[in-house]
Amino acid sequence: MHIPVINSIYDVSLSKLLDTAINNKTKPLGSLGALESLARQIGLIQRTEHPQLTKPAILVFAGDHGIVAENISAYPQSVTWQMVENFLAQGAAINVFARQNQCALHIIDAGVNHDFGPRKGLIHRKIAPGTRNFAQEAAMTPAECSRAMEHGMALVSAIEAKVIGFGEMGIGNTTAAAAIMHKLTGIPVANCVGAGTGLSTEGMLHKQRVIERAVAHHSSVTDPLDVLSTFGGFEIAMMVGAMLRAAERRMVLLIDGFIVTSALMIAARLQPAILDYCVFCHCSDENGHRQMLDHLGARPLLQLNLRLGEGTGCALALPLLQAAVNFMAEMATFESAQVHEKME
Amino acid sequence: MHIPVINSIYDVSLSKLLDTAINNKTKPLGSLGALESLARQIGLIQRTEHPQLTKPAILVFAGDHGIVAENISAYPQSVTWQMVENFLAQGAAINVFARQNQCALHIIDAGVNHDFGPRKGLIHRKIAPGTRNFAQEAAMTPAECSRAMEHGMALVSAIEAKVIGFGEMGIGNTTAAAAIMHKLTGIPVANCVGAGTGLSTEGMLHKQRVIERAVAHHSSVTDPLDVLSTFGGFEIAMMVGAMLRAAERRMVLLIDGFIVTSALMIAARLQPAILDYCVFCHCSDENGHRQMLDHLGARPLLQLNLRLGEGTGCALALPLLQAAVNFMAEMATFESAQVHEKME
Repeated sequence: MHIPVINSIYDVSLSKLLDTAINNKTKPLGSLGALESLARQIGLIQRTEHPQLTKPAILVFAGDHGIVAENISAYPQSVTWQMVENFLAQGAAINVFARQNQCALHIIDAGVNHDFGPRKGLIHRKIAPGTRNFAQEAAMTPAECSRAMEHGMALVSAIEAKVIGFGEMGIGNTTAAAAIMHKLTGIPVANCVGAGTGLSTEGMLHKQRVIERAVAHHSSVTDPLDVLSTFGGFEIAMMVGAMLRAAERRMVLLIDGFIVTSALMIAARLQPAILDYCVFCHCSDENGHRQMLDHLGARPLLQLNLRLGEGTGCALALPLLQAAVNFMAEMATFESAQVHEKME
Repeated sequence: MHIPVINSIYDVSLSKLLDTAINNKTKPLGSLGALESLARQIGLIQRTEHPQLTKPAILVFAGDHGIVAENISAYPQSVTWQMVENFLAQGAAINVFARQNQCALHIIDAGVNHDFGPRKGLIHRKIAPGTRNFAQEAAMTPAECSRAMEHGMALVSAIEAKVIGFGEMGIGNTTAAAAIMHKLTGIPVANCVGAGTGLSTEGMLHKQRVIERAVAHHSSVTDPLDVLSTFGGFEIAMMVGAMLRAAERRMVLLIDGFIVTSALMIAARLQPAILDYCVFCHCSDENGHRQMLDHLGARPLLQLNLRLGEGTGCALALPLLQAAVNFMAEMATFESAQVHEKME
C-alpha cells in the first residue's frame, strides 16, 4: 500500500495576499473572527485568493464491530444495517442536513454484518461482515486493513469535490475509537470512554473494563497502522485512507465527531501535515472528544451538544465555510465602498 | 405609549407532544443536543408540533451617537452613514450572509447624522440626526425615546416573518450599550467596556472613564426606560420596540451581539417573558457580551469570535434554526424506518 504524501499548506506570499484581501473588506480588522481564519485556510489549501466550495460531498462509512459480543452498546448490532437502510430512504438526520445544505451524500458499506443485495445508492466496499472481537484477537488482519484504506483512497479519487466531509455509522464504534484514542495519546481509558448511543453509568464502567482488558491483551501494539488493524473498524480504516487521499488532492476535510477524529488521529500519525487541511466542525458531547481535539490542537467551529455521528457536524458546519468564501468573494472593500478607514 | 404584553410560551401538553415527536426520531435520545432545544422552543412559540421558519427577516437599525464627541471610537462618525450606503449597495458582511441564507434584509435609518435623500431600499424613520452627548445631557428626550420605540413596533407589525433578527450600525454604540449594561446589572463599568471597532488599551481606558463620569452625572436614573433615553441610541430604542412587538406577535427573535443584547435587556425589564422568544445567536468577542448573556441566563448557539454587529450573528445562526425545524419535519421515526429502539 502506498501512503499518500501530504505537504503543508504554508505559503508566505499567498498568506500575505490573503491577509491583505481580508483586511481590506469593510469591517473592523479581525472582526469576522473564525470566518477569517477559515477563509485564509481554504485559500491556502486551494492555492488561491479566490477560494470556492463547489460540489461539497459527505461520505458516510458504515461497518460492524466484533466487540459488540462484549455487550458494550445500548443498541443491538442490527441497528447498523437498519440505519444504512434509513440513509438510503433519506430518513436520517444526515439526509436532512445534507439536503438542506445542497451537499452530496455517499453511503458506503465498509463492512456491515448484513447482505443488502443490490441497492440503489449504496456503494458496496464490504471487507467482511464485521470485524473480529478485539477483546480476543485483532479486529482485522493487516491485509484487510490495507484493503479498507485502499478502498477509501480510491473512493475519494473518484469524487469531484472541493470540500469533503466524513461521517460514520457502526454500533460499537465508540468502543473502537476509545481504544484507538487511548493507544495513541496515553490518556487513561476511563477518560476515553463515553456513553455512546446512551449507556448507563454502569454500562460505561463495563465498557471501560472491556477496553482496559483488551489493550492489556494487545499491549505490544504501538505502530499506528497496527493500532488501526487491532482495534479499528472497517469504516474507520476506510476513512483513514479517504482522508489521506483527500488531503493529497488538496480538498478541505470536514472532521465530524469522536469516531471520525479517531480515524484522523491515525492519519495524522502517518502524515502530520494532514491537519492543515482539516476543519474541525463540532465538539461532540461524547466524553473524550474534547480531549481528542485538544490533543490535536484543534478548535471546533460548533459546540451544539450533538452526539449522533453520521457526519451531522460536517453538514451543519458547511454554511459557515460557505460564509467564509462568500465574504471573500462578495464583500466590498473600504476603497470600493468609499468607507473611511480606522483613524490613526 | 402602549407596551405590548408578552406571555410565557410554557405549555405542558404541547411540551409533551413535542418531546414525544423529537424522541421518536431515528437517533439516540437527546443526541441532537441544542437542535432539539431549538425545535422545542420554536414549536412552543408557534404553538405547533410542526414549526416552520418561513420568510426570515433581519432588521438593521442605524443611528448616530452624540457621545462620539468624547472621542470614544476608533472610526469617525461618518462611517455610520457610509456603512448604510454599503448596506444599500449590498457590499457589507450582513448583505453577504443574509443573501446566502435567503433572509430578507431591511435597513432602517433610526437617526443617522446624514441626509440620505430618497434612497431605494432605505426605510426612513430618523428621529433626529444623532442623539445628544450623554456625558453632558440625556441622549434623547422621553418623547424621542417613545417615538423611536413606536416606530420599531410599527415596523414589525408590517412584516410577515416567522423569525426576525436584529442588527445595528452606529459609531459609538458600544459606549451606549456598555452604559446600559452597567446601569441594569450593576457590573463595574470596567467589565462592560470593550474595544468596539478596535480601540487600543489606552482608548478603552478613556472610554471607561467617559462612561464612569457619565453614569455619575446621571446617578439618579434607574427606571429602564429612563436608562434607555439617557444613554441609549435611536437604533437601540427602536429595537426595544421592535422586539416587544415581535414577541407579542409570537415571532422567533434572533439576538445578535453586544448592542442588540443591550436593547433586549431593556425589553426584558419591561416584559420578562420576552426571553422565551429569543434565540441567542452568537457570543461576541466584544468584552462584556459574555457577562451580559450570563446575566440573562442565555446560552448562545455560536461562538466564532465575531465582533462586527450588523446582525451577522443572526444570519449565520439561521441555518441551525432551519436544521431544527427540518429534522422535525423530515426525519423518519423508529417505527416508520423499522429501526430497533434502545435495548432495556
